[in-house]
Amino acid sequence: MDLVKVAANSRSTSVAGAIAGIVREGGRVDIQAIGAGAVNQAVKAIAIARGYLERDIIAMSCIPSFTEVRIDGKDRSAMRLTVESGFTLPAML
Amino acid sequence: MDLVKVAANSRSTSVAGAIAGIVREGGRVDIQAIGAGAVNQAVKAIAIARGYLERDIIAMSCIPSFTEVRIDGKDRSAMRLTVESGFTLPAML
Repeated sequence: MDLVKVAANSRSTSVAGAIAGIVREGGRVDIQAIGAGAVNQAVKAIAIARGYLERDIIAMSCIPSFTEVRIDGKDRSAMRLTVESGFTLPAML
Repeated sequence: MDLVKVAANSRSTSVAGAIAGIVREGGRVDIQAIGAGAVNQAVKAIAIARGYLERDIIAMSCIPSFTEVRIDGKDRSAMRLTVESGFTLPAML
């Protein structure tokens, strides 16, 4: 599983390109963001990547979850957004 | 389609309860957020809702997109996160 770390000052179009590249190859990618600014950039990047993939007729979805990461010896709460290609089929469950 | 507007000071657990309730009934819900603080609360709420739904063995996914909303006569760029139940099937496209 690829991991892309996004910061508040990350360029969302660059992150979007990375996400789209991985999903286009059939992969999954975890986007990790700490703090509101970073989460915002991550969500923007995923929305832009969705536009890129739509042109290639590839659907994608994302699943947000919480995770703990250790930075400089301290535990920090991070958001993880797992992005992968695929339909969502509401009627299957 | 239900619309839930999330602000930076929204309680993510309350929003999560609303999301889980709608998705549990087989519905879709659009979460709308303007600004980094609101987007962060929205993503947290979706992650919490995912935990609630997991206990009921309901999978969910979310699709982020950009949208324009008119507030006090001004056009603002907002994030929209569409949440629905369903598997993601990577191999289907």
